[in-house]
Amino acid sequence: MPVPTATSDLLAAPSEAEIAQMDAWWRAANYLTIGQIYLRANPLLREPLKPEHIKPRLLGHWGTSPGLSFVYAHVSRLIRHTGQETLYLTGPGHGGPALVAAGYLEGTYSEIYPEVTQDEAGMLRLFRQFSSPGGIPSHVSVTTPGSIHEGGELGYVLVHAFGAVMDNPDLLAIAVVGDGEAETGPLEGSWKGISFLNPKHDGAVLPILHLNGAKISGPTVLARKDPAEVRELLSGHGYDVIEVEGSDLPGMHTRFASALASAYSRIGEIQQAARSSGGDGTRPRWPLIVLRTPKGWTGPSSVDGVQVSGTFRAHQVPLAGVRENPEHLALLQQWLESYRPSELFDAAGTPVPVVRDAAPSGDKRMSATPHANGGLITRDLDLPDFRDYAVKVDQPATERVESTRRLGEMMRDIYSRNPDRFRLFSPDETNSNRLGAVFEVSDRAFMEHVTPDDVAIGPDGRVMEVLSEHNCHGWLEGYNLTGRHGMFATYEAFAMVSASQTVQHSKWLEEANHLPWRAKVPSLNVLLTSTAWRNDHNGFSHQGPGLIQVVLTARGDVSRIYLPPDANCLLSVADHCFRSRNYVNLIVIDKQPQLQWLTMDEAIEHCARGAGVWDWAGTDDGNSDPDIVLACAGDVVTMETVAAAQILRDKLPGLRVRVVNVVDLMTLPRPKDHPHGMSETLFTELFTDTVDVVFAFHGYPGAIHQLVHGRPDADRFRVRGFIEQGTTTTPFDMTVRNKASRYHLVMDAINNAKRLPRGAEDLKKWCESQLARHEAYVVEHLEDMPEVRDWTLGDWATTS
Amino acid sequence: MPVPTATSDLLAAPSEAEIAQMDAWWRAANYLTIGQIYLRANPLLREPLKPEHIKPRLLGHWGTSPGLSFVYAHVSRLIRHTGQETLYLTGPGHGGPALVAAGYLEGTYSEIYPEVTQDEAGMLRLFRQFSSPGGIPSHVSVTTPGSIHEGGELGYVLVHAFGAVMDNPDLLAIAVVGDGEAETGPLEGSWKGISFLNPKHDGAVLPILHLNGAKISGPTVLARKDPAEVRELLSGHGYDVIEVEGSDLPGMHTRFASALASAYSRIGEIQQAARSSGGDGTRPRWPLIVLRTPKGWTGPSSVDGVQVSGTFRAHQVPLAGVRENPEHLALLQQWLESYRPSELFDAAGTPVPVVRDAAPSGDKRMSATPHANGGLITRDLDLPDFRDYAVKVDQPATERVESTRRLGEMMRDIYSRNPDRFRLFSPDETNSNRLGAVFEVSDRAFMEHVTPDDVAIGPDGRVMEVLSEHNCHGWLEGYNLTGRHGMFATYEAFAMVSASQTVQHSKWLEEANHLPWRAKVPSLNVLLTSTAWRNDHNGFSHQGPGLIQVVLTARGDVSRIYLPPDANCLLSVADHCFRSRNYVNLIVIDKQPQLQWLTMDEAIEHCARGAGVWDWAGTDDGNSDPDIVLACAGDVVTMETVAAAQILRDKLPGLRVRVVNVVDLMTLPRPKDHPHGMSETLFTELFTDTVDVVFAFHGYPGAIHQLVHGRPDADRFRVRGFIEQGTTTTPFDMTVRNKASRYHLVMDAINNAKRLPRGAEDLKKWCESQLARHEAYVVEHLEDMPEVRDWTLGDWATTS
Repeated sequence: MPVPTATSDLLAAPSEAEIAQMDAWWRAANYLTIGQIYLRANPLLREPLKPEHIKPRLLGHWGTSPGLSFVYAHVSRLIRHTGQETLYLTGPGHGGPALVAAGYLEGTYSEIYPEVTQDEAGMLRLFRQFSSPGGIPSHVSVTTPGSIHEGGELGYVLVHAFGAVMDNPDLLAIAVVGDGEAETGPLEGSWKGISFLNPKHDGAVLPILHLNGAKISGPTVLARKDPAEVRELLSGHGYDVIEVEGSDLPGMHTRFASALASAYSRIGEIQQAARSSGGDGTRPRWPLIVLRTPKGWTGPSSVDGVQVSGTFRAHQVPLAGVRENPEHLALLQQWLESYRPSELFDAAGTPVPVVRDAAPSGDKRMSATPHANGGLITRDLDLPDFRDYAVKVDQPATERVESTRRLGEMMRDIYSRNPDRFRLFSPDETNSNRLGAVFEVSDRAFMEHVTPDDVAIGPDGRVMEVLSEHNCHGWLEGYNLTGRHGMFATYEAFAMVSASQTVQHSKWLEEANHLPWRAKVPSLNVLLTSTAWRNDHNGFSHQGPGLIQVVLTARGDVSRIYLPPDANCLLSVADHCFRSRNYVNLIVIDKQPQLQWLTMDEAIEHCARGAGVWDWAGTDDGNSDPDIVLACAGDVVTMETVAAAQILRDKLPGLRVRVVNVVDLMTLPRPKDHPHGMSETLFTELFTDTVDVVFAFHGYPGAIHQLVHGRPDADRFRVRGFIEQGTTTTPFDMTVRNKASRYHLVMDAINNAKRLPRGAEDLKKWCESQLARHEAYVVEHLEDMPEVRDWTLGDWATTS
Repeated sequence: MPVPTATSDLLAAPSEAEIAQMDAWWRAANYLTIGQIYLRANPLLREPLKPEHIKPRLLGHWGTSPGLSFVYAHVSRLIRHTGQETLYLTGPGHGGPALVAAGYLEGTYSEIYPEVTQDEAGMLRLFRQFSSPGGIPSHVSVTTPGSIHEGGELGYVLVHAFGAVMDNPDLLAIAVVGDGEAETGPLEGSWKGISFLNPKHDGAVLPILHLNGAKISGPTVLARKDPAEVRELLSGHGYDVIEVEGSDLPGMHTRFASALASAYSRIGEIQQAARSSGGDGTRPRWPLIVLRTPKGWTGPSSVDGVQVSGTFRAHQVPLAGVRENPEHLALLQQWLESYRPSELFDAAGTPVPVVRDAAPSGDKRMSATPHANGGLITRDLDLPDFRDYAVKVDQPATERVESTRRLGEMMRDIYSRNPDRFRLFSPDETNSNRLGAVFEVSDRAFMEHVTPDDVAIGPDGRVMEVLSEHNCHGWLEGYNLTGRHGMFATYEAFAMVSASQTVQHSKWLEEANHLPWRAKVPSLNVLLTSTAWRNDHNGFSHQGPGLIQVVLTARGDVSRIYLPPDANCLLSVADHCFRSRNYVNLIVIDKQPQLQWLTMDEAIEHCARGAGVWDWAGTDDGNSDPDIVLACAGDVVTMETVAAAQILRDKLPGLRVRVVNVVDLMTLPRPKDHPHGMSETLFTELFTDTVDVVFAFHGYPGAIHQLVHGRPDADRFRVRGFIEQGTTTTPFDMTVRNKASRYHLVMDAINNAKRLPRGAEDLKKWCESQLARHEAYVVEHLEDMPEVRDWTLGDWATTS
């Protein structure tokens, strides 16, 4: 693998011509930034500005933009000197106009949006679409070429950068961290990415902490700390800190070029050492640049006698009321002219050669790198046949298996077959989640000190464990968006920690689906184990199926929710998820030994349909007219449902009970509400049109209510699910507390059946007595409480 | 205010007797910890351990426990010497057994759970309830006396500690940070709490970073970094680092006592300086202790020839299979005896005096401090009359007001009246959210450098702005749980960043409601502005009403969701929320100028009922038999609904339209599903039993579907809401994209009305033409798109 080589040209101070060229590009970017915020006409200042040239509402963010463009210009020079593959990640979310300007100057913008031409008309279009209805937002977004990073919710620029360079040895990710963003928890928790980055097989992240001093209405913490303290902090995070400060020109060009060359050179040395000799496996001290420039650099210094540049007042629109205030209009004119646009754009409005040539060419332009449009370079996984990991099921409900263990074995072989494009991410729970087979072929990644007592951990590892859902989720996003595959496995309740990331990534994919130029990337796969229903020594705080609710809110072209009831279904679902693109696949299944229901062939058919009647469990004998439908989705509640059907078969044999299991939750809504939604005909085949349905659900009951809304007589669905009752207890007791136990389901069936054989009231009483017996048992027995295995089907008879 | 004074006794090395006493207490705590994990009988080892004395399933966490107890013993000594009010916060979540043991030894446990007596029977009960069904979890939880901090989701120990000491000048919060937890984003982002803590009027947080080296199955980053780097990091965060390392005894007692005394003494100096002379207003360097002890300290060093102590293997149960393995049983016996229990408990099983006396007495015991049961010391807010901030409304829909501005004025006066118990928390958005009136009476809190260009910021400020939802939310939780009041105001979409905190706090309150000894604390008030429907220059990533979905999942005795349609309703709702206890109150309202509907008297009545018919907006003239009900919840959609009703009145006058506005979303479910659920009678009065309801909702439509489930003929509710369509655009265009505009609502009304006057089809066509016209307008006009104010009721006529 080639490693970055800082050419002598690069290491030398830039020539006057080079500085002039970078400065020209930078001025052009700044000009275009301001144009986007202010102008609706006269984009090239062919005549003096008049009020009617100014947008009626002034929206946008100037403050961070000149700094972003400054860095961009310098990185472009570096690329031109070195040919380095480079991805630019914009942490300061509202630097949108700067990055749009960069893409426009590089020509990429016109390539993907042909209506935005590189001439006066196109420039005007560029200006008018900005922060306008139906146009583009003021933040970096999916529409911005060269970006894999939405500038909305702050805090993820480093996790995206680290994810992007994992197994991407030739890539350099420039990650600009804003000082506002640097206050967030997720960002502060993500500096440690270098503890998991191996220069041998991973690329490099160069963080540039851009301290421009202020947020929307006040100063930032890092900008106001003693610089020595900031240096200590970043050095303590493990970085070699290079500092550049000022606003003087061309001095800043010279100093920043030198800082960048020196950082790049250091990265080259690190990678060279690691890749040639194998390195010593310890974490290098990676370079990091702290760049201090005034907020709104090159913009109005003061307005109406009040300091603007360098303060929070430069954050958005430094000159307000420009239409109404002639002085402000004149200031805007001066400001725009200070960039000498006539030197930057020709008569047609096209950037002049010196500006155009400041950018690298082709795919080396940061706005055009395929790493920012990962679908273009995604190679499908070389997947083993998932059937090879099947559990042999001769008869339903006779064997107990830790289902996720089979998935672990499958992932082990995916690791082996795809050493360059698959990773598992988890907050320290790979073994706990029974996925530990992966450690047969890969250690956990760790670049810090390792001791002889450690197991399956070291610098060559590629299983990612860090006790931070934010890091895991964000790394996987970066990995996916640059075209690689993976899975994030975590505890169900704590998936809410990164729920906002799930939301934001879903939104990214939803938006990307509207943009033909964005190629589809591998899906984000999220596996939740340690579910609400079984937490052993953990209590109520560890019990919550909230992420299902969250994923439900995403658009149907993105959201997928699977509740495989056993190992074979899990394998089939996982295979599908690993092959898919542009989805958020949520898979929920318990890690403990659980009853197995379906043979592999049955599982494949069941998962393909997404839901089906389990004839063997019911008593309606294929009768199209059952008295009651018992439906279920989720493993523990499926067991209760099958148990309830068994009780009914034994004790109320005349009742025609149909059992329906749902593995793909998104088959429930109408086809117009979700592409997986089953047809009205199929829905009726499963649930009838009129018979009541007792639905036992893994998640909150409201989810089913909202999913079946609009289906025939949706009111007939009586849903049992997690009703926020929990404690440290057995899964069976959890079902009792949440009124979803087999006994509750039997009583529900009796209360709602269309037709009742004799004996129903007696059976209800029996159920009540069973529950009372359970209650007494819990009170008396405390820690002797049987485990789930004593409460499963096979043993049920012994308790009756 | 008194400041901590390190007595000379404390500063001196502890005497041998003192060490012996601390050590005895510590041994007792460790003994009880192990007993909880292992024993179901023979708690005092009156006979040699037999298999039947051992629990059938061994669950629990030993690893972090001895370190936690060690620190606890030393802090107890400090309290006995100084009388210091102290709160102990346990970051390492699964140190539950250690904290339970502490509460038991201090007698608190028996005081609040009288069945857990301080004798052999009680000790056995203590052991058996642990990690058992219906018992207590292995993590610190609501049931643990002395805790305001759930040891479930990790990362919040410092935010809770900082929140607890704000405006609590006499309190010292000992915050033990685990090295696993220290990997999380929220924790790393929370060291900066000291940048917002003023020693003049706030108490002190003493973080103790407990590096014991491992998580559940591997090492931690901080434990494996070069200690010098860790020191640099923490020093860079602004702390004076004191380090203690080892496992030697009594050496560790001596060294830790000295470290603690020195830290305490430094805190005293800091507070003394700030409170006597007023200080210089800059941030002091607060002390912080790094404590390095082996994981599972004092436990089995190696088991079956494999190193356990000091490794991840000590995390949970270091000796497995004790029932089956006689060697392990013998090791357990040795281990338990190593603490010399006969010296610690008398014949009855009661802790001996030397152990009991190691604890402070009464409320000074950390397990009994009222600061950890904040409801006991909560003083109601001195609230101004919210009517004083009313908007004068002579006629509905004639005036436009920024509703939240009125709330800001009300909060300004709450600040003035309650200088010691009210704070507003926001990620840098107080002004943006139109709440800036608070700055008339309080600056933003900031202990870093302040410049003359800064506005409303400084060390004496008590408005909390930090660009971290995690810090804001967590600080407010800590503030609430120690008995003070506040509000967290944030952008609607980014409320998902801290959604898991909202969930966890809800769970805390749900659990607390079951515990009579936990006094009710002020509610957690969350205000969401900058809503999904109006984001100006922001795009799709900023648009998401997800937090409503999240709060909906909480139990009804905790969750409250309000969607005030105007300023007077907002004021009435806010007044209610500020007076309430033990709720999570979610208030959603846009910050932009919006039409005002109700007089203050009407608003009060409307909010008290939670939902009501707006006669003036409808055309059913009090007729109990409308043809269609137009319902709405949320400001923008309320405007569309009233506009739709107006269109129908003008253009289809024969149609009997009823308009219902819902301000308290929780009136919709049945009373059995939520205490605010309106009676069946009232529900029928508003929505009838049979007439179709077109419901325009601020959030995701599914929320209404699930809320009205079980109401008469719930299928008749046709919900329009946020269907995940968005971009940078106007609120009106947002309603069009999400099919919730006035025109869509009119068409829905026509499509679902019970009875249609002539002209309905024409009106539908007209609506379609209006939408087409809008579409064309958007395409043509880009940035000239009128703002919401051009699309409100008064102007509607001009577009028709």
